[in-house]
Amino acid sequence: MKLFGYFRSSAAYRVRIALNLKGIEADQRFVHLRKGEQLAPEYGALNPQGMVPMLIDGPNVLTQSLAIIEYLEETNPEPSLLPKLPLERARVRAIAQSIACDIHPLNNLRVLRYLIGPMKLSDDAKNEWYKHWVTEGLTALEKSLSPAAGTGTFCHGDQPTLADICLVPQIYNAEKADVDLTPFPRITKIVAACRELRAFQDADPAKQRDAE
Amino acid sequence: MKLFGYFRSSAAYRVRIALNLKGIEADQRFVHLRKGEQLAPEYGALNPQGMVPMLIDGPNVLTQSLAIIEYLEETNPEPSLLPKLPLERARVRAIAQSIACDIHPLNNLRVLRYLIGPMKLSDDAKNEWYKHWVTEGLTALEKSLSPAAGTGTFCHGDQPTLADICLVPQIYNAEKADVDLTPFPRITKIVAACRELRAFQDADPAKQRDAE
Repeated sequence: MKLFGYFRSSAAYRVRIALNLKGIEADQRFVHLRKGEQLAPEYGALNPQGMVPMLIDGPNVLTQSLAIIEYLEETNPEPSLLPKLPLERARVRAIAQSIACDIHPLNNLRVLRYLIGPMKLSDDAKNEWYKHWVTEGLTALEKSLSPAAGTGTFCHGDQPTLADICLVPQIYNAEKADVDLTPFPRITKIVAACRELRAFQDADPAKQRDAE
Repeated sequence: MKLFGYFRSSAAYRVRIALNLKGIEADQRFVHLRKGEQLAPEYGALNPQGMVPMLIDGPNVLTQSLAIIEYLEETNPEPSLLPKLPLERARVRAIAQSIACDIHPLNNLRVLRYLIGPMKLSDDAKNEWYKHWVTEGLTALEKSLSPAAGTGTFCHGDQPTLADICLVPQIYNAEKADVDLTPFPRITKIVAACRELRAFQDADPAKQRDAE
């Protein structure tokens, strides 16, 4: 298996955590997003979206971080990254998607570049945009996690799931952008629990071979 | 089952299609997004994100359209909205997520309002933003669908899947925004095939009781 990623990409970071939790070895390849390597024709031929992560498993090309993680879950069920019951699986997926669909897509590199490029926003406006969506998203998530039956040491129960896999890279990004996390004590506590685990530690952007 | 939606919400539209394909009856409730009904405290108590769709199944509250559809798939497996093989399931989920994570979140109502509100962009700039992300996303999707083993009458094979469920509402939105779809013949053909089916027809925004 080959994982094409970039140390700062939070979507690639999610897949690194999932691989580590499942103990799957993957040969890491690096695509330098800031230098535009994702736009190279050879990469685009495999992945027309020109994004990371991309997982190559034998002759097969997989894209989209959550689809890749569901694939890893189906092909390597243990340890499981989703609970057993449909209702609990739905809760975990909803938390993951509240990050992967409603926070992260608004704040990734291509979007921030488009705001200060063609949309001609100032750096200050771009930073306001960034903090707005992170804060709004985390505010809702904190409410979802705090009173809810289901929340444990981790977002759901006492084992890390797909929800935590999405949460930790999002919080890494929020910290880099100096977002105030004090209104989110439950999230902060869950992230601290994740960071105790080797699988999360080894996936940290700063530890990747392409880190700058 | 109760589905809380809004006729123009493409995330709610996805769940309506899924329910129809599976032949599941749900009592529809309407949340008027433009009037801000999603921000009412009673709604927020159930769904802190203040978004639609929300599905109530007995005592359980489910949010996030893709999580809801995976739940419907797990609890009502036939007819299936995902293929059997993990690799094919990953392809379908990746297509769905390329829409649900990389196109739609950039162009939904709350984001467009934030662009012309706090970000002070003109209507023209907002429309340029809208068309940019739709066109970029559909360009990649057209490439993914066109040469690919797997594509059939629908995005994957000859039965509608989660991928088509995400595609049709996205194309509905693109048409409303006058995005030029002529560069996307494969997508256009697949959408036409979907629109032959009663499940897609009945889910159309114009046919909902809250349509304006």
